[in-house]
Amino acid sequence: MNETTELDPPTIVWDDQGACLRVIDQRWLPHRLVVERLRSVDQVVVAIRQMWVRGAPLIGATAAYGAYFAWQNSGGRDDAAVAAAALKIKAARPTAINLAWAVDHVMRQAREASSEGDRAAAALRAAHDIVAAELERSQRIGEHGLTLIADIAARKHGEPVNVLTHCNAGRLATIDLGTATAPIYLATGRGILVHVWVDETRPRNQGAGLTAWELSRRGVPHTVIVDNAGGHLMQKGLVDLVIVGTDRTTRNGDVVNKIGTYLKALAAHDNGVPFYVALPSSSIDWSMATGGDVPIETRDGSEIGRVFGLDESGKPNSVQIIPPGSDVANYAFDVTPARYVTGLITERGICDATEQSLNARFPVNDR
Amino acid sequence: MNETTELDPPTIVWDDQGACLRVIDQRWLPHRLVVERLRSVDQVVVAIRQMWVRGAPLIGATAAYGAYFAWQNSGGRDDAAVAAAALKIKAARPTAINLAWAVDHVMRQAREASSEGDRAAAALRAAHDIVAAELERSQRIGEHGLTLIADIAARKHGEPVNVLTHCNAGRLATIDLGTATAPIYLATGRGILVHVWVDETRPRNQGAGLTAWELSRRGVPHTVIVDNAGGHLMQKGLVDLVIVGTDRTTRNGDVVNKIGTYLKALAAHDNGVPFYVALPSSSIDWSMATGGDVPIETRDGSEIGRVFGLDESGKPNSVQIIPPGSDVANYAFDVTPARYVTGLITERGICDATEQSLNARFPVNDR
Repeated sequence: MNETTELDPPTIVWDDQGACLRVIDQRWLPHRLVVERLRSVDQVVVAIRQMWVRGAPLIGATAAYGAYFAWQNSGGRDDAAVAAAALKIKAARPTAINLAWAVDHVMRQAREASSEGDRAAAALRAAHDIVAAELERSQRIGEHGLTLIADIAARKHGEPVNVLTHCNAGRLATIDLGTATAPIYLATGRGILVHVWVDETRPRNQGAGLTAWELSRRGVPHTVIVDNAGGHLMQKGLVDLVIVGTDRTTRNGDVVNKIGTYLKALAAHDNGVPFYVALPSSSIDWSMATGGDVPIETRDGSEIGRVFGLDESGKPNSVQIIPPGSDVANYAFDVTPARYVTGLITERGICDATEQSLNARFPVNDR
Repeated sequence: MNETTELDPPTIVWDDQGACLRVIDQRWLPHRLVVERLRSVDQVVVAIRQMWVRGAPLIGATAAYGAYFAWQNSGGRDDAAVAAAALKIKAARPTAINLAWAVDHVMRQAREASSEGDRAAAALRAAHDIVAAELERSQRIGEHGLTLIADIAARKHGEPVNVLTHCNAGRLATIDLGTATAPIYLATGRGILVHVWVDETRPRNQGAGLTAWELSRRGVPHTVIVDNAGGHLMQKGLVDLVIVGTDRTTRNGDVVNKIGTYLKALAAHDNGVPFYVALPSSSIDWSMATGGDVPIETRDGSEIGRVFGLDESGKPNSVQIIPPGSDVANYAFDVTPARYVTGLITERGICDATEQSLNARFPVNDR
């Protein structure tokens, strides 16, 4: 374990001298800040599968470097090992569309290189380009989403704008700025008062552990709540806006996101609270008609039965919370039907969660 | 701490020889089975406030014995100390209506005794009567609710009936059988296959810790899920019926229950899944017009920030899951509007969640 004293290290960064990818092992947050170095396809697969890195854009970026390692390994030969490595990386997790998208993109760029000797370098450039493009998308999502927050702030006359978010679609899910958090960071950067309700997001507590941590580091006022609480807060008028991310949005605007997102969308709908999804276009699956078609990952039941944190002596530990004889089921994502989505905040602006509106922003020849 | 080897001890029982009330200290479940003896008003208040006992009917029964201790203490004199004790017990927790109802009932019965010397005995009898009446109500709720399960079972031709429940409205919330669980126990007792989806129920995990434990003890198949998962299960057709309890239902049929209940009601509504609330009439607040009038308890944030269980060495421990600098808000209950409630399962049968329907079952002169 490599703990770092950096205050706010990047989620992912290519280390040219070390010829390795540095990522935060997010499993230790918020308790330890651990940076690991990845140097092979297998290490990338482990980091994605074991959720050292998570969040659709960050998974995609990490996978892109995995594809580079495959080309580097083969010395640029387009052999069976390269193809197998690509498949292996794409299979590391099933739901986030960015994973397959990024690997396919790097593979394509490498194969288009003029010679075998150039392929690994082309793959690395393609991975760098994905990182740069995701960062740019976060920035633009932030600018478009900022207008929503600014409009509410103008109506609230100095009262903070209360934004509820689920899971972590924050900087830790991306290269920086996040998707759902990008409008929040940009708003606070411009002096708009924002307060964030952070769903703890069982079973892995990405809200309590990651979103709360990164908002703390960047000085954004926030309050952690259990996932059960959001409906009550909306009934009481304590939520002005919901912004979440997505692991995959299908072409009709159905939003696949962390389990429990759907329940918040229902509550927002029932209480007239705007419900927005912030997403880079890399999270749109144009090949899928509806969210019902997307494979929903089921994960090990131990994620529910054992909760990880710092124990009473301040040491990392986990506690068992269910009786030994009880079964557990662990569905990682759910589908929020497009009809409950007020709008999609993309890098090309805010659009309706409909096929027509998405097509207008992202024409077939310009995706 | 008094661990017991009893397999399935009562949640509450009067010990005549010891002149004390024996209750399970439910804070240790599912890890330890601890039975404690209560002998004073103050001990009763602590047991209710610290949630050794919880669940509206069980809180009411425990409080009733608290009121008895007050009369015993005063030697039957209706002095300021008795009145103060009654107020103190009623203030132990704010949301469950059974608490005030039970204390008021015992006070009334004691005051109607023919002499000071008879008052303590009258109070004790009244407390016993409350216990007997609650048990009878659970039995009848079970019989009425059983018809719902049996009807679904008949349509499923041998497939188990999937019931989702939230929090613990089980035998541990009552004298025995529970409210929401009573139909389940009676159905399984008659050989109907039932499988229960158990919401873990953050922040105190009464589902994971209590409902799962008591279903295990009585051999009812069940699966623990995070609170986020219920909507997804309903979308996938994996829930036939939702049954929950209530801490207080107002005369229009609004249901105040554990935080998160409202979100499950919304999901049930969205997916055409019947949503029932099982309640003894002692949980109906005839004095309140709507759920919006009910005080919603907020509890200490440490309930969210620290999760209790057995650590990796098998010892009771707790782990901190949020960063030290983050705020926490802990709302204990929410209000499910009557329009999302398919029906109320009472001891007098199943009725609509409307003032008219409730009044028809419980006329003013027969409550």
